[in-house]
Formats: sequence, C-alpha cells, structure tokens
Amino acid sequence: MARNSIDFKAVILAGGCGERFWPLSTPERPKQFLRVFGGESLIRQSVMRLLGLVRFEDVYVVTSKELVAATRRELPELPSDNVIGEPMRRDTGAAVALGVGEAGSDDRTVVGFFPSDQMVADPRRFRASVKKAVSIASRGRRIVTLGIKPTFPATGFGYVDPKTGSFVEKPDAKKAKAYLKKGYLWNAGMFIAKAGTFRSALAAHAPDLVPLASGRFSAELRDVYEALPKISFDFAVMEKCGGVDVVPGDFGWDDVGSFAAFDTYFPHDSRGNVREGPCTVVESDSNICVARSARISLLGVKNLVVVTTPDSVLVADKSRISEMKKLFKRN
Amino acid sequence: MARNSIDFKAVILAGGCGERFWPLSTPERPKQFLRVFGGESLIRQSVMRLLGLVRFEDVYVVTSKELVAATRRELPELPSDNVIGEPMRRDTGAAVALGVGEAGSDDRTVVGFFPSDQMVADPRRFRASVKKAVSIASRGRRIVTLGIKPTFPATGFGYVDPKTGSFVEKPDAKKAKAYLKKGYLWNAGMFIAKAGTFRSALAAHAPDLVPLASGRFSAELRDVYEALPKISFDFAVMEKCGGVDVVPGDFGWDDVGSFAAFDTYFPHDSRGNVREGPCTVVESDSNICVARSARISLLGVKNLVVVTTPDSVLVADKSRISEMKKLFKRN
Repeated sequence: MARNSIDFKAVILAGGCGERFWPLSTPERPKQFLRVFGGESLIRQSVMRLLGLVRFEDVYVVTSKELVAATRRELPELPSDNVIGEPMRRDTGAAVALGVGEAGSDDRTVVGFFPSDQMVADPRRFRASVKKAVSIASRGRRIVTLGIKPTFPATGFGYVDPKTGSFVEKPDAKKAKAYLKKGYLWNAGMFIAKAGTFRSALAAHAPDLVPLASGRFSAELRDVYEALPKISFDFAVMEKCGGVDVVPGDFGWDDVGSFAAFDTYFPHDSRGNVREGPCTVVESDSNICVARSARISLLGVKNLVVVTTPDSVLVADKSRISEMKKLFKRN
Repeated sequence: MARNSIDFKAVILAGGCGERFWPLSTPERPKQFLRVFGGESLIRQSVMRLLGLVRFEDVYVVTSKELVAATRRELPELPSDNVIGEPMRRDTGAAVALGVGEAGSDDRTVVGFFPSDQMVADPRRFRASVKKAVSIASRGRRIVTLGIKPTFPATGFGYVDPKTGSFVEKPDAKKAKAYLKKGYLWNAGMFIAKAGTFRSALAAHAPDLVPLASGRFSAELRDVYEALPKISFDFAVMEKCGGVDVVPGDFGWDDVGSFAAFDTYFPHDSRGNVREGPCTVVESDSNICVARSARISLLGVKNLVVVTTPDSVLVADKSRISEMKKLFKRN
C-alpha cells in the first residue's frame, strides 16, 4: 500500500431479526436476505455498492451466530473469517465495538459501519459521499456520519443537525416538521472514523465495550456478551460524544423499513396494485400482493398487504404494517 | 315388501361445478364434497338424512362422469351402479330425466329428487315432510314439491305459491318482499312424484327428455346428451305443468350458496370473526378465515373472506362473494 493512501475497512451490520417483512423474512432469513429489489439480496447490494472503495478482503460482516453460515453463502467472495457471529443480541453498541476490534487493529485504519438492509438508488453518488467521509475521518478526530437529505418529515428515523453535528432521537410528527425546516438530516446509521477515534469514544462514553473494541478479552465471547448491556451505538456514543462531522448524502436512500417499500420500488397496475408472483386481481385497488407459493386471488378489496409463503399467509391493512410485531406475540 | 307399502327411491342431484366455494371447492371437488358443516360432506349428509325412508340401495346419485369415482368413494354403501355419470352438463332437466329412467322402472315407484349440497338443521322434521310428500305423490297425479318457509326476502331462489302450486322465477328485491307477504315458499329444488307422473310431465312439456326418462334409447348416452338442450327441470317442467302439490317444510334449510354460510353455521369470536384452521387474528373484525394449508395471519382488516388451500389463496370482500365467477375468467 502506498504510504499516504488511507486504509479503509467496511463493516456491515447485519443484526436484523426479520420481523418487519414477515412472512417473507423470518428470524432464520431476515430482511437483509430479501431479494425483492434489484435481484440481489439487500446484504449483497450493501457490499457490492462499496466495491472500488474497498476490496472484498476489507469487508467485514457482524451478524448473529445463527446467521453466519447463511451470510457466508450469500457473500462467498469474503474471507470466511470476516463474517463474525455475535453469540447473542446486544444491539448496535456491542456490534460496532466488535467490528472495530476485528477491522481496526491499527488505530489509523478508518472503519466505516453500514447497515445491511438499506436501498441506495445511486451507488455512484453514495461512494462519493463515503469517500469524502473517509477522507475527513482520516484527517480528524471525530466520528463522521452520512446525513441523508430527508424527503418527508419521517418519525421513524433519528436526525442529525449538520451544523452542530448533534444527534436527536426519533421525533414526533410536529418535531419532525420542525427538524426539516431547520435543515436536519436523517441518521441512516452509517458512521465512519479511525479505529482509534472509535476506541476513544467508547472509552469515554461506553467503557463496558472497550475490551470488545480492542480485541482484548480473555473470556469466551459468549461470556463477554452476557455481561454487556443492550444499548444502541447511537444512544451509547453518538448522542453523547458532543458532536460529529456530517457529510450530507443525497443518493436515493431508503431503509426498506416495511412492506410500504414495495409501493416505492415496484410498478403499479392501473388500479394502484403492486404484484409479485402469481396474482389474480379483480376490481381491487392499491394492494401489495406478493405470492411466493400459492396463487393469490383478490376480489373487491383495497389497501391490503397480502403475502403468501409456503408456511404463512399475511393479510394486513396497509396502514397497520408498522404494527406487524403484534402478530408474533400470537403466533 | 308389503303389498301396500310405497316403493320410494331417492335421487341425489350432484351436478355442482365447484365455483362458489372456490378455492375450497374446485371442479374436481365441488361443493357437495365439502366437509365444513357437521363433519361429513354435504353429499353424504344429503344421503344420510334420508335413511329410514330409504335403504342405501334405494338411493341413486346423478353426477358428472368425472365425479363418479369420487362419489362412489364418498358413498361406499351405495351399489356402485347407483352412481350415474352424465357425459356432459345439460342442467337439471336431463339429470332428472336420467334419474327417473334409472330409479323408476315401475311407473308406481315414487321418485324423489334432492340436491346434494344443502344443509338441513333438523333432519327429523325434514324426513317428516318428505314422508308426507311421498304419501301425497303416491296417491295423486301431480308432482309434489317441498316449499321452504322463507326466513328473508331472498332474490337467489325461485318461489312457489302453496295455494296454486305455481312456480315463479328468482325475483328482484321488491318482488321478493311481495312474495313473502303473499306466503310464497322457497323452491329448494326438491320434487317428488311417481315415475309415471314424471314421464307424463316430460312427455307433455319436454319430449326431448322422454327417452332418457324411460330408459329407452339405443344410442350411446353421450350421443343422446349431445342432442339435448341445456335446460333446468324447473324451467322445462315445473313452471309449465300447471300446478304442483306443495308440502311446506320448516326444517332449517339452507342452500349453502356461498361463504356467507360460514357466518351462519360457525361460532364467532368476540369481534365477529369465524375461524377454521390455524388463524391468527389481530385487531380485525367480521372476517371469515379458513386455513386449509398455511396459517393465516390477519392484522387490522375487516369484512374479508380469506381462504387458503395448498394451491390458492382467496382474499375477497364479503360483500363480493357472489361475484366469485369473475376470478375464474382470469385464473
């Protein structure tokens, strides 16, 4: 490597639990494995759009230990040691610390964290933003985040003020509108910094996570995890570290948060229905119809999400898809 | 048989084509094979509720040739020759004539026709009504029909005036109300007469059907059928024969015409949902949910009929279930 090139490693955070796209996604096959957009799985797209900035060997994935094998199959180009299984769920705080420990043995290495289940419409602009963030991170001592230009006053995302670099949690509808007026950006969960910067921030705000981030722990990973709190990296560090550098991003980002994404990414018929797989739709409007096994026949219905898999059939009102968790408590 | 006992044969008309309960019913397994009510299939219930008035050997079934084998399996107690297959669909006119030809070799034999896909809540009262009709038929020269006491001004049934014995076709809503006021009864498609009476009526009003009814035709049954018009027995004979004898029946009759019958015959949960099979129902109201393969999960929906089979998933608004045929044109 040339002396003054930046050593950049990417860590894909793949801890999804498969609830929001159930029954298409399941705990055994969570959202990042969905192939519904663009032919490749979301996790594979998340890796491929970074190529050019990184080589396969520079990409790490942190996922649950149950999903390590499936992730390796999905990303056979990665060195298999680069797919790391967490022994239990401890939210993104632990996952980021583990990723820093694995990818950032040298304090000067820049490590970037990227969710495994997002959509990017324009990968070229995405790479330009990431490259800029990596450059800033390599020269400074702060964590850099990509702030997404909001397209509507979302209440489902946290925000970041690009002027001050301070993070705010998911707002209510009124606050969300105010944030848009103030020019706040969406926190898309992508943060980039030197490994040393991450370690310092963890030492200051989440010392429990330091052993993981330094790769120095004598116990089994399982025992280390057992003792950790469940805490997100946003909450543990980003909201407390007194400001980050923000690189604005405008590259057609979407978190693919629910079946509503089908309405965004698939074409509609003349009555506003989205269809995937064998669907017969008669006198029905504005439905999302995804047939993965048996043929779906709709007659005289509207605003439904209907999904079939060999095991399950979901019929939900579109307005209620954010409440999918209510089904798991019963199933 | 004692000299003055009546020789009574029952013919079950089983020509259903399986559309109205699709996807539970199919052309290969039409409605009469449904087991949803009372545990036994509708066709088996249709036979069993006549026992006492007839022996198994006195029961004939006229069905399509494709369904002969399945019908024999469903009714193994019947002599296999008693299950007769029509080579093609020619409506109930031909089916009745064929039944008279098979069951009524003796002109004095009383033959009764009964649909294969109806519900009777009180078989004891049903048998009493049939017995009365058989007795009247054996002593007279008219066709006797069971007239069902209407429970609402149905537009889906024909009516019979019990005073005059004259038949009227399915009315519009306004006429239906008038018919109820006049004391008209529902025509449930059950008619009983001596074989000779049937043959005379056919000779007078539908001479094309006489060879079938007399069992005297030299050509193959297929060729005989080919030449026949598609015409219902009601239209060919009952509406033209100048009056029938009417035995009023009040035995909890239902024609099980559509999925709406589930609302009538199954218990509801506290929010008005009917469930059969594995169904998870969350914050949903007044749905009919029939899971025959994959589990159904409902979230925030109402007034739907949701049915799963291994091949098909139906999601229809309850108010539209009479329009099920629209789905077949597309499937």
